[in-house]
Amino acid sequence: MKLLDALNWRYATKKMNGTAVAQEKIDYILEAARLAPSSSGLQPYQLFVISNKELLAKIQPIAMNQSQIIDCSHLLVFAAWDSYSLERIEQVFNYTTAERGLPSNAMDDYKNMLWGLYEPLGKEWQATHAAKQAYISLGLALAAAAEQQVDATPMEGFNPGELDEILGLKELGLKSVVILPLGYRDDANDWLVNMKKVRKPIENFVTELK
Amino acid sequence: MKLLDALNWRYATKKMNGTAVAQEKIDYILEAARLAPSSSGLQPYQLFVISNKELLAKIQPIAMNQSQIIDCSHLLVFAAWDSYSLERIEQVFNYTTAERGLPSNAMDDYKNMLWGLYEPLGKEWQATHAAKQAYISLGLALAAAAEQQVDATPMEGFNPGELDEILGLKELGLKSVVILPLGYRDDANDWLVNMKKVRKPIENFVTELK
Repeated sequence: MKLLDALNWRYATKKMNGTAVAQEKIDYILEAARLAPSSSGLQPYQLFVISNKELLAKIQPIAMNQSQIIDCSHLLVFAAWDSYSLERIEQVFNYTTAERGLPSNAMDDYKNMLWGLYEPLGKEWQATHAAKQAYISLGLALAAAAEQQVDATPMEGFNPGELDEILGLKELGLKSVVILPLGYRDDANDWLVNMKKVRKPIENFVTELK
Repeated sequence: MKLLDALNWRYATKKMNGTAVAQEKIDYILEAARLAPSSSGLQPYQLFVISNKELLAKIQPIAMNQSQIIDCSHLLVFAAWDSYSLERIEQVFNYTTAERGLPSNAMDDYKNMLWGLYEPLGKEWQATHAAKQAYISLGLALAAAAEQQVDATPMEGFNPGELDEILGLKELGLKSVVILPLGYRDDANDWLVNMKKVRKPIENFVTELK
């Protein structure tokens, strides 16, 4: 299925029907999220994939009681680094040089330049920067889900501090930034399913400078 | 082409060859960006699509002299709202209700709830929130470019204040947040083209809670 057809098919499903999504489709979506580009290739985020029903029931009340939390098949939690550190950057670059068969010091100058740039900007800036990278990954997960005809509803309407608490993210130096229930639409009970998809007209969205 | 194959094909092209990308491919990529979901459907960003060579030459020095700026075919600039306002939200919701044939006041409660939430968070929070939404759109543009076998290099390495100045974004209440040259790889001269694509192993990226 072409991406544009898939994107026109998808919508922010408001009511899911509880049907399980096949593991191979979940794996496909996670792989798209993993392949997302990120600033300097740091991938400063991780994914938590929750299908445990008790855990989902615990999350629903801190996510405005949205029904998709318990009617989805899997809930993806995008958890971004709470800050950068020389150690975190080093770990990524060491892995990259090893995988590419480069000398282990091949990225040292770049690493020092990057940390020299990020450190003075402070932890709040760093967390925001990491969160933005996670949103690129979210975009690719959405594209993959649509291609697989899996419904997906990006959500920011949850209490991130409480979700971090439930998942023990603080101890991992992570912050939940956006969540994505995956499942199947309940056609009969979703008020949005038959509404027209509305986006800004292209002429209000794009300015061409030729 | 399947999305995962396309994502494995793409990479952050370091040297482009100046070949023009066909308009229909550019339009396809812009349409994917336009179809991206955003928080409450506000699409708090616009795209500037620059193919004017003089303008690109003016931008290159404020983008760390990166060669892709002048060797690309089109440069996309993702420009997010610098803040939210009741008027901006109203304009989107008025359009949405009209397109859906709903009474014009159908989204009034939601609008007031949203503005009641956003206003106290302040302009800086608002700008960051808008920027994050633009990154979802960036993700879908990347997916579309890869599907069309068009190379694309997401870049944050530019001076946003100076780019805003060049494009007159401040007057429009916009801030440039990320840019994306589109073009074709120069295989012979790109140091990255034959390097292995490296991402965190899936077991370090995903935590399953079953």
